[in-house]
Amino acid sequence: MKALVYHGPGKKAWEEKPKPTINKTTDAVVKILKTTICGTDLHIMKGDVPAVTDGRIIGHEGVGIIEEVGNAVSNFKKGEHVLISCITSCGKCEYCKKGMYSHCEDGGWILGNLIDGTQAEYVRIPHADNSLYPIPTGADEEALVMLSDILPTGFECGVLNGQVKPGDTIAIVGAGPVGLAALLTSQFYTPAEIIVIDMDDNRLNVAKTFGASQIINSSDGKAVEKIMKLTNNKGVDVAIEAVGIETTFEICSEIVGAGGHVANIGVHGKSVTLHMETLWSKNITITTRLVDTVTTPMLFKTVQSNKIQPKQLITHHFKLEDIVKAYDTFGNAAKEKALKVILTNE
Amino acid sequence: MKALVYHGPGKKAWEEKPKPTINKTTDAVVKILKTTICGTDLHIMKGDVPAVTDGRIIGHEGVGIIEEVGNAVSNFKKGEHVLISCITSCGKCEYCKKGMYSHCEDGGWILGNLIDGTQAEYVRIPHADNSLYPIPTGADEEALVMLSDILPTGFECGVLNGQVKPGDTIAIVGAGPVGLAALLTSQFYTPAEIIVIDMDDNRLNVAKTFGASQIINSSDGKAVEKIMKLTNNKGVDVAIEAVGIETTFEICSEIVGAGGHVANIGVHGKSVTLHMETLWSKNITITTRLVDTVTTPMLFKTVQSNKIQPKQLITHHFKLEDIVKAYDTFGNAAKEKALKVILTNE
Amino acid sequence: MKALVYHGPGKKAWEEKPKPTINKTTDAVVKILKTTICGTDLHIMKGDVPAVTDGRIIGHEGVGIIEEVGNAVSNFKKGEHVLISCITSCGKCEYCKKGMYSHCEDGGWILGNLIDGTQAEYVRIPHADNSLYPIPTGADEEALVMLSDILPTGFECGVLNGQVKPGDTIAIVGAGPVGLAALLTSQFYTPAEIIVIDMDDNRLNVAKTFGASQIINSSDGKAVEKIMKLTNNKGVDVAIEAVGIETTFEICSEIVGAGGHVANIGVHGKSVTLHMETLWSKNITITTRLVDTVTTPMLFKTVQSNKIQPKQLITHHFKLEDIVKAYDTFGNAAKEKALKVILTNE
Amino acid sequence: MKALVYHGPGKKAWEEKPKPTINKTTDAVVKILKTTICGTDLHIMKGDVPAVTDGRIIGHEGVGIIEEVGNAVSNFKKGEHVLISCITSCGKCEYCKKGMYSHCEDGGWILGNLIDGTQAEYVRIPHADNSLYPIPTGADEEALVMLSDILPTGFECGVLNGQVKPGDTIAIVGAGPVGLAALLTSQFYTPAEIIVIDMDDNRLNVAKTFGASQIINSSDGKAVEKIMKLTNNKGVDVAIEAVGIETTFEICSEIVGAGGHVANIGVHGKSVTLHMETLWSKNITITTRLVDTVTTPMLFKTVQSNKIQPKQLITHHFKLEDIVKAYDTFGNAAKEKALKVILTNE
Repeated sequence: MKALVYHGPGKKAWEEKPKPTINKTTDAVVKILKTTICGTDLHIMKGDVPAVTDGRIIGHEGVGIIEEVGNAVSNFKKGEHVLISCITSCGKCEYCKKGMYSHCEDGGWILGNLIDGTQAEYVRIPHADNSLYPIPTGADEEALVMLSDILPTGFECGVLNGQVKPGDTIAIVGAGPVGLAALLTSQFYTPAEIIVIDMDDNRLNVAKTFGASQIINSSDGKAVEKIMKLTNNKGVDVAIEAVGIETTFEICSEIVGAGGHVANIGVHGKSVTLHMETLWSKNITITTRLVDTVTTPMLFKTVQSNKIQPKQLITHHFKLEDIVKAYDTFGNAAKEKALKVILTNE
Repeated sequence: MKALVYHGPGKKAWEEKPKPTINKTTDAVVKILKTTICGTDLHIMKGDVPAVTDGRIIGHEGVGIIEEVGNAVSNFKKGEHVLISCITSCGKCEYCKKGMYSHCEDGGWILGNLIDGTQAEYVRIPHADNSLYPIPTGADEEALVMLSDILPTGFECGVLNGQVKPGDTIAIVGAGPVGLAALLTSQFYTPAEIIVIDMDDNRLNVAKTFGASQIINSSDGKAVEKIMKLTNNKGVDVAIEAVGIETTFEICSEIVGAGGHVANIGVHGKSVTLHMETLWSKNITITTRLVDTVTTPMLFKTVQSNKIQPKQLITHHFKLEDIVKAYDTFGNAAKEKALKVILTNE
Repeated sequence: MKALVYHGPGKKAWEEKPKPTINKTTDAVVKILKTTICGTDLHIMKGDVPAVTDGRIIGHEGVGIIEEVGNAVSNFKKGEHVLISCITSCGKCEYCKKGMYSHCEDGGWILGNLIDGTQAEYVRIPHADNSLYPIPTGADEEALVMLSDILPTGFECGVLNGQVKPGDTIAIVGAGPVGLAALLTSQFYTPAEIIVIDMDDNRLNVAKTFGASQIINSSDGKAVEKIMKLTNNKGVDVAIEAVGIETTFEICSEIVGAGGHVANIGVHGKSVTLHMETLWSKNITITTRLVDTVTTPMLFKTVQSNKIQPKQLITHHFKLEDIVKAYDTFGNAAKEKALKVILTNE
Repeated sequence: MKALVYHGPGKKAWEEKPKPTINKTTDAVVKILKTTICGTDLHIMKGDVPAVTDGRIIGHEGVGIIEEVGNAVSNFKKGEHVLISCITSCGKCEYCKKGMYSHCEDGGWILGNLIDGTQAEYVRIPHADNSLYPIPTGADEEALVMLSDILPTGFECGVLNGQVKPGDTIAIVGAGPVGLAALLTSQFYTPAEIIVIDMDDNRLNVAKTFGASQIINSSDGKAVEKIMKLTNNKGVDVAIEAVGIETTFEICSEIVGAGGHVANIGVHGKSVTLHMETLWSKNITITTRLVDTVTTPMLFKTVQSNKIQPKQLITHHFKLEDIVKAYDTFGNAAKEKALKVILTNE
């Protein structure tokens, strides 16, 4: 089969690899129908994720068709359409039992990281019963690709951890795909005001069409000042960090009001300064989370009942075999006005 | 009347002051029976709390007898014994309605700070109906002084915010009065293991008698290593910070396990480093809080039913008029083996 | 002034009464601008509420202008526009401190019940600081009348107690004003399916326009069967009872799925049968509640930010002086297709 | 092997049966070390549980040694000591993922019910990875038998569902084994008062030694009156029903205070009357639950750390081969002063 293979920092190729097979009785092999590229994949390609080694097939999102299942798999059989979760869950360790699939003792984020991933014609999925979700006939499979990672990430790490409530004033710092996923899913809880902050006017305009009530370009360094003014100096109820750097984390911790929440989604490479000298008495809550995808069934229902249109996040389409071109587009997101790209295995 | 008055950094005096009177219809004047000294009072005396100005009567804890009430006060009348909360609550602002009395728009921590406090023969208590609690006949009033501040602080900021659960492994970093208050109240929720960390062996021994299952002297810089070993490298479910400096905050953030809680109690004077490069994916929750004293009624019931003995925190007794001597003792806590002192107005 | 006065079962009159005055320092007198009639008022008029005695002015909803305040009132002053809550809250008893204003020891539902109410030119509001809410300039005051009782009732007793979540399948049994209020506010939490059951096709059609995804006329006795079919025999996540009789309560307890919630809103006059022989093992939760109006500030924000249009509930308008005619219309709700009527004091 | 076999109402025998074998790759066969008899087993023997048919081996509790595992079992291997949960959980259906193992689509309560159970020398356990728990070396295995069913039942259905909090006043109606399990585990949350109600003085005395602060013999029909007096007519915060008949359910619904919880544990054979005419406005919560055993790991930790002594529930010991005699003793619990019996396979 053909697959996108990582060959060390800056090197990747669409090349021939052996088709995966069942290793354990709990595995499934899935033929990929549609997949996408994640910001994390860009980091991997740069060499920022040392766990990913030469020869690895990248990718942790997608929908496909069951090609084969191990004999302990009971939820799926050959020919069924499935959503692949970015998180592999064994369903039987301490963490899985608590719904913390991200920390599964025999899973977690391993696809396209510790084992071969989904940017390929076929992929082996360990613990298939707990790591795949059935796709009902007639569902929009392209939209569902957004449920592999980006929507549960925005929802669980940003919205649920932030405890967004009806009537809240919330701020989302960062209007990339994950920030926009938080923007879409935050509306499940009907906040009164959603302020989106970014440095890219195009993304801010997208945020506006996705439901932001206020947009702020933070290039001038006055985002905090503007938000405090908008909130009568009370600050926001929930500040969602969707970038992963100190500057944006600090914006969040400066705009959060007494009793409020800072929900971190961003992947951080460095430490940040936490101003405990002001925060210690503000009754705030700061959360971190690697997506557990424990809400995938809930998100499925909201998509099936048309309460959310994840397709809004898709800006570009490619054939799977043109994935290297797709990386170029996605890697120049600002210039290309790219959010999520869809790669179709035809 | 006589009162302890702050006269700028390093200067205090037990001196004559006018007896307080009713300013507003919601005020009460309380004759102090017993009061105590808080670590915060030591900071004030050093000049660390600029809001406290020359001439201020210090103190925010105590029990007393109602001397006089304003005509809008309905819960109390002259002669009744009352517990004074360190937090003044109007009961009718946005924050009070949410149980966040610490951020009351016409209250919060004002006693012995923005208005005259309890280290005096009499004190005026604004919003008396919501800021005082009735003491039933026969109650141990000395023990109840611990409910003005120290017990709700340890309980709300440490135990409740930390979400201590039965079977948990928790760590309390700092075995001063507030850490010990967290230790006592954490046992309401029956954690399996309570590890207490401090640099003072005497306090650690006290912690042992108060219910710690493990004590660790962190002087050798190996506390993190030891705790990770004790927990099979899983880390603790809840880490309670009860000091207020970067070193102890970092211990907490290093020992907290995946899915765990860091509950900050300590008053911080400086920022701390937050290692988001490791924490971002650990599904942790960090909380801060200025005590709200919203749990005072709950704590009252646990004291009345003998489920907790707050008296264990009391190490020294003085006459109120000897308060300057009491400050000396409390200011040399390690040497004097002092936790909380009781000052009695005889 | 003029007021609607109850004179025993079946007898009421729009007649002259003394204008109310300040009795306690915490009172306010409010000039009524707009009020409405509640289903409970109809019960009172029939003599079903024995606590209401001859001579009582009826009504517990409305908006108005502060005419006068007692000297302990600090949140309001003469001339300000206010929303009147149907629940009076002292803000300082055990129940108010827990947010259970409905059980306030010096309040609760007393307006138009134990004390004179709002169907009058003026009304005295005890504990004004905690029982009134400021109306910002420019707000739609007619819409806000729905926040006195009907919206918080549907929201707190039905939606919040039912713990409606994104993706849920919920059923609302009863499409009268309170059931419709639950329907409107349930959408704050984005359920996937909302099934509304009633015996009146007109109300069901209204429910459809208000966001119901399925409507079922239960006249044929087959509602349970139909709902079980719609839910693949799993039952619903949340069943909201908005009528108050055994038949509708039983529908709820038969359609609730394993792990689900039955949230009772209806005022019941008789006991019901609870089928514990089937329910004991179904992991369900049944709740009851007299509205606390603790969510009024939250609801205010959702109205101000246009997330909900409470005005949809208003079908008829009258002058306050024509209130007897308004009672006729509201008393023949089915025939008149009446939901809520607005009475304006001009 | 030998096993206790049900042969229709009133008929049982300790007789030869084939030793169980692995049917599915997820099965384990466990050699029983210790088991016990449940009140439910008595109902089965009377013929009250029609799903149990002639030839069935009874029993759903016990500890044992792994004899053999299917090739998809990864958590256990031959020779390891395990606790058997009364609830079988597949770990991969909708309900298991929500922690509602009791409603597992391929499990739930099936042991000694729909499939052969634990009152035998060997038992086959489906979905072994999720339905067994490892026993650490040195643990008191007899005590752990109480974790198969009785302790999680009392804890989950009574204490957790009842939301017992520090300082609460709670009542437990029924002092049989499950009521006593609720009594023991309620103390994890430090209620201020625990009132236990029963008609058997011996059991009430046991309750006293287990931590009840008040005991009430309800034979005189005055239990409600006495509890209302004890609580100054406020009622209790939590009423736990541990019998399963209308009389005891009604006691619970009459003594629950405003804002309180009724947590049902009892298995009901008939409907009960629910007094909605008084309860509708009392802001109460009624819960039902078939034990999920989702808290078994938590309970394990509390036992291992000596926070609870489940052995207190054990009153009698027998050899497994003398199980018929053990049934006689347990079936005359009042006369024999029996709580739980231990059967040892020697």
